[in-house]
Amino acid sequence: MSETTYDVVAVGNAIVDIIGQCDDSFLDTHGAPKGHMRLVDRDTITTLYGAMGPTVEISGGSAANTVVGLASLGGEAAFIGKIADDEFGRIFAHDIRAAKVAFAAQPVSGGAPTARSLILVTPDGERTMNTFLGISPELDHGEVDPQTITASKIVYLEGYLFDRDDAKAAFRQAAKLAREAGRQVALSLSDGFCVDRHRDAFLELIKGDVDILFANEDEIKSLYQTDTFEDAARNAQTDTELAALTRSGEGSIILAGDQRIKIPAQTVEKVVDTTGAGDLYAAGFLFGVAKGLPLDVAGKLGSLAAAEIITHLGARPRESLAKLAQKQDLL
Amino acid sequence: MSETTYDVVAVGNAIVDIIGQCDDSFLDTHGAPKGHMRLVDRDTITTLYGAMGPTVEISGGSAANTVVGLASLGGEAAFIGKIADDEFGRIFAHDIRAAKVAFAAQPVSGGAPTARSLILVTPDGERTMNTFLGISPELDHGEVDPQTITASKIVYLEGYLFDRDDAKAAFRQAAKLAREAGRQVALSLSDGFCVDRHRDAFLELIKGDVDILFANEDEIKSLYQTDTFEDAARNAQTDTELAALTRSGEGSIILAGDQRIKIPAQTVEKVVDTTGAGDLYAAGFLFGVAKGLPLDVAGKLGSLAAAEIITHLGARPRESLAKLAQKQDLL
Repeated sequence: MSETTYDVVAVGNAIVDIIGQCDDSFLDTHGAPKGHMRLVDRDTITTLYGAMGPTVEISGGSAANTVVGLASLGGEAAFIGKIADDEFGRIFAHDIRAAKVAFAAQPVSGGAPTARSLILVTPDGERTMNTFLGISPELDHGEVDPQTITASKIVYLEGYLFDRDDAKAAFRQAAKLAREAGRQVALSLSDGFCVDRHRDAFLELIKGDVDILFANEDEIKSLYQTDTFEDAARNAQTDTELAALTRSGEGSIILAGDQRIKIPAQTVEKVVDTTGAGDLYAAGFLFGVAKGLPLDVAGKLGSLAAAEIITHLGARPRESLAKLAQKQDLL
Repeated sequence: MSETTYDVVAVGNAIVDIIGQCDDSFLDTHGAPKGHMRLVDRDTITTLYGAMGPTVEISGGSAANTVVGLASLGGEAAFIGKIADDEFGRIFAHDIRAAKVAFAAQPVSGGAPTARSLILVTPDGERTMNTFLGISPELDHGEVDPQTITASKIVYLEGYLFDRDDAKAAFRQAAKLAREAGRQVALSLSDGFCVDRHRDAFLELIKGDVDILFANEDEIKSLYQTDTFEDAARNAQTDTELAALTRSGEGSIILAGDQRIKIPAQTVEKVVDTTGAGDLYAAGFLFGVAKGLPLDVAGKLGSLAAAEIITHLGARPRESLAKLAQKQDLL
């Protein structure tokens, strides 16, 4: 196999998060399904923004958050996604490059705007996302650069890409290029509702093309349409070579062949905003796998990164994850 | 005197803050004077942004932060400032209105962009600001609405407005309208360097038109060109009817005629970002004065609001200041 430049390249939506706080009743009033991501159109996002309280803007995007977290741990990362030539596009590009993630995208003028997600954080720290994808899914063959894909040990794909045909095509292209180059393919199921929309396709991918699967309890139960986590985990163990299933405060379970490794969650003083908890878990786990660390260490790095992210607003680390990991003797 | 609608109307720069963390050496490299605000042009802000680490975007602007804090305490507030018809203008307008501050500005198309300030936060929590004013100072007579000014008990003006002639004219117009209507005029000296640029004009204003003066130690020493806080305070006591002088961790001193009231700072667990500490102190103090509370309570409300703001990134309160004040039996 040829040399690689990156530990992980991610393909995902390039999104700026607009984060505000609200009560549960606000979610009900605006029909936002708590704890989930829903896609909204331009009118809906305008109305919802007008009704929201004051906000903070922070670069986001699920897979983008993951590679930023991986870079913060000291890994080499690249991101493939699409932005418009507007303020949000400049913010997204600045932040991901400032985090030392390679991002070659050329902003596009005159089309749809850069994607944004209105994230409503309830007092329990749970986040509910309302995403206007804008130009983000318009990934074409030029963006999924074969050189970047084959130069990466792991190609990480977010399930959210399946919500648009053009993004889905980019997803499939990236997976195919990775396979042909003998690279590993990792998939995040992204969201329970997203799984519901694309269950069959995801199952086919998982059985055929995916080497590393990430899912939370809700997503894996949705995938296998089971009521219990145990049933879902059993199915996942059959279908995957390597899977990391996250369960919020209950930690995570790594399934590797016949092995099951339980990883405790790291406790935090106060959960401020759960946005990015899954993304950052994936960052830590992928870093561990890419660097050839034992799976339990990879899982612990996932817990550590997730714990950092839920203590503040936004899904981009505030502290150096490498330093935190060194403090805990994980690196 | 006729009825008032607002406790405070503020006139100031309408700015979105772009906040990032850096080491002291980064400030040196880029010639940013630590702890101060400097004005930068478009090229400089572009270069600096490119060199900065990842950022968070949060609405700011000194006087704007103050009225948002006042509204969070339960006061009625309005803001006068200028924005462009761009993403940052929409962010600024959304956030200030979402905070229940009246803001009537019509965004302007085709001119300079909405103002932004690159705020560099060092590990000690100190902030250093690099502001590109864009369209913000282009305040004309239409914006300083006589009805809003005369409908407010206190007109609060930020010293930063003196850095541009058009904004200075708006400042003077607002002060004149307030005087004629028998309203109180409050002034914040904004920044030690700003005082240095406009010392004589500020002194003239303070002796003639200002009822309530806000300054920190650095600013009041710069105003009177003295080396000791004591000398500066003595001068301020002679020149003003009411002044609140803030001294970071050492609390504040209220000068009222012959009276001197010492207000302790509220201790916080960890200072994350001092941006807005002075703005929020002014919010609490002005709320107290507008509501006719004893001056020591006004000062304590200032300390409370400042303490909340320095525990997180950005200069807009995350928690309801009214609730915090109720918990401490100040309201």
